[in-house]
Amino acid sequence: MDKIEIFRSLAIIIIAAKFFGLMARKMKAPQVAGEIVAGLLVGPSVLGIVGYSDFLGQMAEIGVILLMFTAGLETRISDLRKTGFKSLLIACAGVFVPLVAGTLLFMCFYGFAPWGSEGFYRALFVGLILTATSVSITVETLKELGKLSEFVGTTIVSAAIIDDVIGIFVLTIAMGMRDPSNDISRTFFMTGVFFFICVVGGYIFYRIFKIFDKRWKHKRRIPIIGLALCFILSYCAQRYFGVADITGAYIAGVILSSLEDSKYIERKMDINSYMIFGPVFFASIGLQTDIRSVDKGIFLFSVCFVLVGLLSKIIGCGSMSFLCGFRGKDPLKIGIGMMTRGEVALIVAQRALSTGLLSGAYFTSVILLIITSSILTPILLKALYTEKTAA
Amino acid sequence: MDKIEIFRSLAIIIIAAKFFGLMARKMKAPQVAGEIVAGLLVGPSVLGIVGYSDFLGQMAEIGVILLMFTAGLETRISDLRKTGFKSLLIACAGVFVPLVAGTLLFMCFYGFAPWGSEGFYRALFVGLILTATSVSITVETLKELGKLSEFVGTTIVSAAIIDDVIGIFVLTIAMGMRDPSNDISRTFFMTGVFFFICVVGGYIFYRIFKIFDKRWKHKRRIPIIGLALCFILSYCAQRYFGVADITGAYIAGVILSSLEDSKYIERKMDINSYMIFGPVFFASIGLQTDIRSVDKGIFLFSVCFVLVGLLSKIIGCGSMSFLCGFRGKDPLKIGIGMMTRGEVALIVAQRALSTGLLSGAYFTSVILLIITSSILTPILLKALYTEKTAA
Repeated sequence: MDKIEIFRSLAIIIIAAKFFGLMARKMKAPQVAGEIVAGLLVGPSVLGIVGYSDFLGQMAEIGVILLMFTAGLETRISDLRKTGFKSLLIACAGVFVPLVAGTLLFMCFYGFAPWGSEGFYRALFVGLILTATSVSITVETLKELGKLSEFVGTTIVSAAIIDDVIGIFVLTIAMGMRDPSNDISRTFFMTGVFFFICVVGGYIFYRIFKIFDKRWKHKRRIPIIGLALCFILSYCAQRYFGVADITGAYIAGVILSSLEDSKYIERKMDINSYMIFGPVFFASIGLQTDIRSVDKGIFLFSVCFVLVGLLSKIIGCGSMSFLCGFRGKDPLKIGIGMMTRGEVALIVAQRALSTGLLSGAYFTSVILLIITSSILTPILLKALYTEKTAA
Repeated sequence: MDKIEIFRSLAIIIIAAKFFGLMARKMKAPQVAGEIVAGLLVGPSVLGIVGYSDFLGQMAEIGVILLMFTAGLETRISDLRKTGFKSLLIACAGVFVPLVAGTLLFMCFYGFAPWGSEGFYRALFVGLILTATSVSITVETLKELGKLSEFVGTTIVSAAIIDDVIGIFVLTIAMGMRDPSNDISRTFFMTGVFFFICVVGGYIFYRIFKIFDKRWKHKRRIPIIGLALCFILSYCAQRYFGVADITGAYIAGVILSSLEDSKYIERKMDINSYMIFGPVFFASIGLQTDIRSVDKGIFLFSVCFVLVGLLSKIIGCGSMSFLCGFRGKDPLKIGIGMMTRGEVALIVAQRALSTGLLSGAYFTSVILLIITSSILTPILLKALYTEKTAA
């Protein structure tokens, strides 16, 4: 009667995730953190009433794909075009400084590994986890302060979007390189071909879909075809091009993001996501996090990881902003605005776990980073902005 | 890379199911029939591009639970109270005549089996498949004719609702009796205890939930708690009382059906249902239907099954209506209005398959019955009503 156990697990997960998610929000922490804690609590680490199973793992996979698809849907290409060259530069710095800093941090702790070795990829993935900004908390804070439409605000938002795109590109290359059957040139070639096909095919699909959308506005078939596209691209990316499935899902979202009905698709995906798949994904992170295996070494690493994670974004984005002509407190504001991490960091860590690169113990570092950054960013931003008004 | 294959399967299933579902609707057949045909086509019977897997099976299970939960949500207890004694009698006849007729039909084909034997339960399940009316097509037809609010119309709708409740009760008893570890008295006792707990516990839960609902109207937590209740009752029903999980899901729906937000919960469930879980369930029926194993014997059985299915409802409900004082064409209208079958018939058949009672070949009979009844009912009802106006 294994199928019955699933209902039990799902019931516990969705209730616990919702409850702790709401608690987290009350404590001004991100809801996601609460959902992970819920997984930790009900999982083998504490209560042990829900175990990680293949089925939950596969549901979580779908959850990841849906999250990346939604992230893609939120990336408006038209917004990207509007963002200036400055945002692009800041985003690049915001990807590469944390990437290098994270990689070096891991190597400092666990020894330097030569290029291309397993140890190297392990370190590289730790760097990769640090690259993606999750801008939603910053956006909320800036909105609250009424500063979202100021130049600093729009720069942060644009940079965070580009940052996602670059981060995913780097991840794609790294995942491809790591595959032992691929050499680097082949990886670059296949990734290039994939992106080329996505641009051309995506544009054609977008034109066709636009006609569908006009004809069947707000009809169920629109989100259903969108979801199918998401699954197909995820599948094709990994199966035929050696590109990460999450990249495919993200691109599917981007392709549909300029549609009139993109908000409608997003809303439908969102309901699927928050009702079952999302909580299962975040709780499964908690289920897989083995806090009993967190020893002094990993704890020390986690603290350094959080510090490096925060500072590398502040330094990277801040100094590039300064080079781009931002003055006064603006570079610091941009750096702090860019330092929040969220779902994507977890998704990258999860990929590292599922390919056997990192152990579940490192989730603790990522979770700590997400919680710390999400709590610190609003506090620091408010302090910076109110100081300015006082001055 | 098994997890990748899931994305491929899901993409094919949701696209094919939507496409054939729409085609079916265009041809005035039920959408569900189209979705099953989609599963047949992509499955091993024809194209063989999607195989039935454990994961799909478990997704389909969730789909079934969600469908039954939604069916429960649509059952307003207040409506049940309003329906008169006549509807109750018609519903009873509409359950017992097809139940007995279906059981006898199977025995005529495959030999009479003594009470309590495996063969007896096999036959009984064939009868059980025939019990549940799916009234949605009748409702649509009567609406179109402007006759839904007439006495015959309300009688049909009420009888169809009670019919579901009785059908589920009979199914519950049959499933419990079939369990070799249970004797009949124990089954009756446990089923009774379960329903008693559901009535008392359900009422308490309903009162609490009503307060929640007032406080957090239209908040996400409402459907989430509802969904959790659905999973919990499904689990507890089967695990602790030997009652079918679908009964638990249905009761969970009934408990919440009188809430102010029940429509809201229904809408959210619906989206989860039609985007992924529903199509996966119906397509999985197609995937499991092995049409190659349909030989002359099963084909002949299917034809008789359809005839018995249609006639037993017409005779059962029609004659009881006559006894209740309906005259002229009204008993025939009621009988024909009650003869459509839908999801619940499939769900019962699926239960019979998963407990090893019936083989996948018998799905063909059920599918044929659903398609035939759904096409015939509107045609016959329209003919009956227009004849009357002409007279």
